[in-house]
Amino acid sequence: MKGWLAEIAVMPKRSSDELRPFAITPHYLEHPEGSVLVECGDTKVICTASVDENVPRWMRGKGAGWVTAEYDMLPRATGTRRQRDSRRGKVNGRTQEISRLIGRALRAAVDMEKLGERQINIDCDVIQADGGTRCTSITGALVALGLAINNLVETEVIPESALVERVAAISVGVLGGEVVLDLDYSMDSRAGVDMNVVMTESGQLIEIQGTGEDHAFSREQLDQMLGLAFSALPKLLDLQERALKVPAGEPQTTVR
Amino acid sequence: MKGWLAEIAVMPKRSSDELRPFAITPHYLEHPEGSVLVECGDTKVICTASVDENVPRWMRGKGAGWVTAEYDMLPRATGTRRQRDSRRGKVNGRTQEISRLIGRALRAAVDMEKLGERQINIDCDVIQADGGTRCTSITGALVALGLAINNLVETEVIPESALVERVAAISVGVLGGEVVLDLDYSMDSRAGVDMNVVMTESGQLIEIQGTGEDHAFSREQLDQMLGLAFSALPKLLDLQERALKVPAGEPQTTVR
Amino acid sequence: MKGWLAEIAVMPKRSSDELRPFAITPHYLEHPEGSVLVECGDTKVICTASVDENVPRWMRGKGAGWVTAEYDMLPRATGTRRQRDSRRGKVNGRTQEISRLIGRALRAAVDMEKLGERQINIDCDVIQADGGTRCTSITGALVALGLAINNLVETEVIPESALVERVAAISVGVLGGEVVLDLDYSMDSRAGVDMNVVMTESGQLIEIQGTGEDHAFSREQLDQMLGLAFSALPKLLDLQERALKVPAGEPQTTVR
Amino acid sequence: MKGWLAEIAVMPKRSSDELRPFAITPHYLEHPEGSVLVECGDTKVICTASVDENVPRWMRGKGAGWVTAEYDMLPRATGTRRQRDSRRGKVNGRTQEISRLIGRALRAAVDMEKLGERQINIDCDVIQADGGTRCTSITGALVALGLAINNLVETEVIPESALVERVAAISVGVLGGEVVLDLDYSMDSRAGVDMNVVMTESGQLIEIQGTGEDHAFSREQLDQMLGLAFSALPKLLDLQERALKVPAGEPQTTVR
Amino acid sequence: MKGWLAEIAVMPKRSSDELRPFAITPHYLEHPEGSVLVECGDTKVICTASVDENVPRWMRGKGAGWVTAEYDMLPRATGTRRQRDSRRGKVNGRTQEISRLIGRALRAAVDMEKLGERQINIDCDVIQADGGTRCTSITGALVALGLAINNLVETEVIPESALVERVAAISVGVLGGEVVLDLDYSMDSRAGVDMNVVMTESGQLIEIQGTGEDHAFSREQLDQMLGLAFSALPKLLDLQERALKVPAGEPQTTVR
Amino acid sequence: MKGWLAEIAVMPKRSSDELRPFAITPHYLEHPEGSVLVECGDTKVICTASVDENVPRWMRGKGAGWVTAEYDMLPRATGTRRQRDSRRGKVNGRTQEISRLIGRALRAAVDMEKLGERQINIDCDVIQADGGTRCTSITGALVALGLAINNLVETEVIPESALVERVAAISVGVLGGEVVLDLDYSMDSRAGVDMNVVMTESGQLIEIQGTGEDHAFSREQLDQMLGLAFSALPKLLDLQERALKVPAGEPQTTVR
Repeated sequence: MKGWLAEIAVMPKRSSDELRPFAITPHYLEHPEGSVLVECGDTKVICTASVDENVPRWMRGKGAGWVTAEYDMLPRATGTRRQRDSRRGKVNGRTQEISRLIGRALRAAVDMEKLGERQINIDCDVIQADGGTRCTSITGALVALGLAINNLVETEVIPESALVERVAAISVGVLGGEVVLDLDYSMDSRAGVDMNVVMTESGQLIEIQGTGEDHAFSREQLDQMLGLAFSALPKLLDLQERALKVPAGEPQTTVR
Repeated sequence: MKGWLAEIAVMPKRSSDELRPFAITPHYLEHPEGSVLVECGDTKVICTASVDENVPRWMRGKGAGWVTAEYDMLPRATGTRRQRDSRRGKVNGRTQEISRLIGRALRAAVDMEKLGERQINIDCDVIQADGGTRCTSITGALVALGLAINNLVETEVIPESALVERVAAISVGVLGGEVVLDLDYSMDSRAGVDMNVVMTESGQLIEIQGTGEDHAFSREQLDQMLGLAFSALPKLLDLQERALKVPAGEPQTTVR
Repeated sequence: MKGWLAEIAVMPKRSSDELRPFAITPHYLEHPEGSVLVECGDTKVICTASVDENVPRWMRGKGAGWVTAEYDMLPRATGTRRQRDSRRGKVNGRTQEISRLIGRALRAAVDMEKLGERQINIDCDVIQADGGTRCTSITGALVALGLAINNLVETEVIPESALVERVAAISVGVLGGEVVLDLDYSMDSRAGVDMNVVMTESGQLIEIQGTGEDHAFSREQLDQMLGLAFSALPKLLDLQERALKVPAGEPQTTVR
Repeated sequence: MKGWLAEIAVMPKRSSDELRPFAITPHYLEHPEGSVLVECGDTKVICTASVDENVPRWMRGKGAGWVTAEYDMLPRATGTRRQRDSRRGKVNGRTQEISRLIGRALRAAVDMEKLGERQINIDCDVIQADGGTRCTSITGALVALGLAINNLVETEVIPESALVERVAAISVGVLGGEVVLDLDYSMDSRAGVDMNVVMTESGQLIEIQGTGEDHAFSREQLDQMLGLAFSALPKLLDLQERALKVPAGEPQTTVR
Repeated sequence: MKGWLAEIAVMPKRSSDELRPFAITPHYLEHPEGSVLVECGDTKVICTASVDENVPRWMRGKGAGWVTAEYDMLPRATGTRRQRDSRRGKVNGRTQEISRLIGRALRAAVDMEKLGERQINIDCDVIQADGGTRCTSITGALVALGLAINNLVETEVIPESALVERVAAISVGVLGGEVVLDLDYSMDSRAGVDMNVVMTESGQLIEIQGTGEDHAFSREQLDQMLGLAFSALPKLLDLQERALKVPAGEPQTTVR
Repeated sequence: MKGWLAEIAVMPKRSSDELRPFAITPHYLEHPEGSVLVECGDTKVICTASVDENVPRWMRGKGAGWVTAEYDMLPRATGTRRQRDSRRGKVNGRTQEISRLIGRALRAAVDMEKLGERQINIDCDVIQADGGTRCTSITGALVALGLAINNLVETEVIPESALVERVAAISVGVLGGEVVLDLDYSMDSRAGVDMNVVMTESGQLIEIQGTGEDHAFSREQLDQMLGLAFSALPKLLDLQERALKVPAGEPQTTVR
């Protein structure tokens, strides 16, 4: 780990309402219809969007599309190696829970009838984890999804964009009694309360998940956490907008 | 289904801030250390608490216990038969997500050191589903857990109760623009927003999960939903208190 | 377990040719086409029958139906909690064996051509186990199946009942050299020989399974066991007949 | 299939109380402690007995052994190729049911305390199937088990044989109203009733499984079937006795 | 194991360029379209070829066939019992690797267009293992495949043989610095380098797999190993030719 | 795919004995003891080495270590999305075969006694695939392994390096009759023969795997392919040497 813990100790302290450095590299991979590398501090996630014209049977003949998502981590994305689900023979509960959250958040951003009878499969693979992987995945995956939809418009598969609104997500929590924004792993593991907020461009909520396994939280703290999230999310929504405008081609451009 | 949909159509309309009839039958089964049948309208769940003195390796030597939960449905608890997970060879994502939620909620109610080095396994099996199964499971499972802990105290395995506070849960939502309490299946399938709120006796939040897959929701609607939930949860917490005082023995007593 | 073993010790001793109290509650659940709660002493099983119009490929175009069954137990139906098969990732051998037995027994009761090209899925879920779960499941499931078939006739899906004969099942055994009827768990675990007998209304045999893992048995003992089973089964067949005549609607009626 | 069906048609008709040619080749394989090739007509099964000194945890410290069995078929042992269970990812229900039957039958033949704290794993793999595979497996596996136990005595691991009695099995059925012995596949697929009988040297029953899925059967037919089985089983028990006396070494000797 | 190791010790030493006794028994089983028992020293494999007219979707409408293979071992084919993959719930990596090798080798022998839109499934089940099971399987399976293709020609399903060339395989290795042919288990487990060579009638290579996990090998040693393989393979290809000419019918003929 | 196929068409043609641009970025991730990003043309693989002090039971007490490897691809590393093995419930055969190849190749590079009783787990995850992923993985993983071993020496867990020799791998093939080096996906899918060669610093062979599924190949072609591989591998071995000397720390250095 090469002094990793030591490094944390000497890092200049972020203030409690400050985001970690956030970066999106669109068109990160060759093959997918949409793809990004998204980074939030030391958390790094590859998000891809794959268009599938062969929809499952239950979708056929309804004239509407669907968006689904899968989240996973490389075995050594974390401090200790985690066995692959494929070798265990079953999908980890946390993995499924996060996959479902990402799917719900992205579906809220899409007009399924404009998308037409096709499915977009989102894959979020965490390359390196340092807290906030589920929110970072949502924020990045929205861009991959948007790039894939742009591609459908450019290739005249659909007449106009099926992306209704951008959505972005951030985590907030309560740490030592104080309300804090964007928890990294070291903060997250000490936090008594952890909340994920997914918001649209127009400031509406898509999903809110707050958990106080170690410490219950008051409605007042809930309001403070929501306030922090609402102040930070517009920055991520802007970054998404800029990333969606980056043209494909070498060398790759990173939007920060 | 024998006119089931027809029955719904003619049911006297509940007002939007009214709970469905709620009932807890403690000591429902012979074998488990704690068990209840919990009913919320037509939703029926069997909750059991099983004490396991053989804790997993990672818990040994720490002097503290653990609570874990599994949620499942009988194949025909719903209108259409669902294949058993055991036959599909994998655990359904929704099932895992709800199991994890129940586990988190109940752990927040327990002092793990007072519980000592033992594990309590909670099982919530939905016999009949009509919306609100996850919240009904939490509210019922807390009683099963409490009965099992009382049993540990009575048999002098632990000196005093490890139950810190009761916790209960209720669902709220937005239906046709109106904020409503305790959604049944017919309401839930039409609701644009669905939220689960888990609260302690002292009015603190343990978990809040709001999802607007079909319609985003405003902070104002969030506040209204929280208000409804906070007004209803004390009734469920009272019911739990009474259920925990019911002595074992035939005939079974149902607390309403 | 609250003195469970103690209770057994003081129970008035049944005579060796006496059935435990047996009860059937038809129309137990809202959703299934047929359902019962069946109780044999402290053994309690929920049996449901679900009609499926989408038959598997191998059945199509043959003008005949099929009946299949799945048996399972809630994790804490027994004295010790048993891990769910869905979490183990494989179906328990005993569970499969009993599922197959129930399916065979019920298929013998049905005229598949009168049923037409549809499948009825039987689910037997043991809520509480005290011996005799497989025989109790067969006896109860026949009623759930019959209710579902009645429903098909009433809704004019099929012109006449596809139920040819009722079938019921009971266990017999050899305990301490004595031939005994209807073994509960405490008897079953001490019995050297255990036999399940499935019989039709007309007194014909559908299935007979006798096992002497601990003690071999003579043809004479086999005859005595068969005699006991034949004397008791007509009572269960009568109970089924009465249960099939109970109309749907609240409050639920239990036939004993 | 090279005229296989045609061959059947012209085969000299066995009388209904006649066994097919039955053959046991002991010491069939090099590696197992006990092994046979057992043939009943065109049904061929390789049975092996493997001694395992590392017993499962629940057996330790009890001073007693255990016998367990697994049954399987090569994919093309039958007329149509069957997918391997390992590729399907789950064990076939019929396969598990038969494995459990073989295990129970063989355990009845062994004194577990004389066997000592070790496990014998029986494997029955059907190379070619023509009906009666489960009974043929039991009859052959008893010899493999006996050879392995003899080996334990010869190598002075245990002081005296743990084999109490030999057990053998045969199938009987009702075909076109007539009671018949030892059903081959063509008979079995047309038989209305099928029964397996497992008997000891001393003429006691270990297991009896009769199924009338297509036609119920009377107590009189049951008695006739038992009679046929009891007349034939002594021949198989004799064959086993002779097979157990065949010394190891090339060339292999087949006992008929 | 009855002196098995001892026997090895006293066996007359084969010279390093000598094959073990090799035997093929065609038409070994009744049901498959093609089948052999193939023996190489103490290694014994049953190979079957099953013709499947229902091809997978991706093959339809292309006018061409496919050949696929599965390799497995009986649990006690080796000195120590190995758990069945079906019970472990996953297919062993080595098993999959060898299955894929056999499939590739056999596909190289077939003209897929002449085969027409049908699939031939090859099954190689090792009954007894003493080294060289993958090469022995290829050599035997080619004959099973050829018999099945002959059967398709004889029954006029295809107008002419789809078998282009026979292919056979042999293992070579480096043992104590010396290059040796046809390693048995005792040699294989001590060999530093192990190589499998698959060759056609016309002396072309289909597959070459050399592994030096314990000792790297030079190009010179590679050439020597290839030389040994090339000198021995014509003998196996001749044996295959003779085996393919053996007519079906009893008693079985073994070609050596 | 944004003109991906078009791009290939206009790419300046590599000569048949030329490697694609090859790059190694050591210390690519924070958490693993060793990690690299390795690129061969458009093929990109993340390789990590994780040290595990808890070795499996069979390794204990032998004073020697072990190296094992797992290979996988992100779902959209290729032109068409591939379902995750974890969702299919079984590990893909090709994936297992390549994992085993990487493990064998790396074990040949390590002195297991010098490594001591610990295991190094190698993970190779293909981010983007354009042919040659297995060879690129071996070449990159050797560096990740070397970095982890260096880390063990630097932290004084082991006294001296356990890396005996570096090993690298390259693919060669026959395409349109011509022998070519380093096949990309477009070449690989058209090549009749495909061979992977793993070589040590000292020019010895560790593994050679040549497959001619579509076209058999002659010994002469084999020699030519080996010649091409031997001429190219020293360049990769040099690159590895330079990559192993790059110190950790930001910004990351890529060795080309």
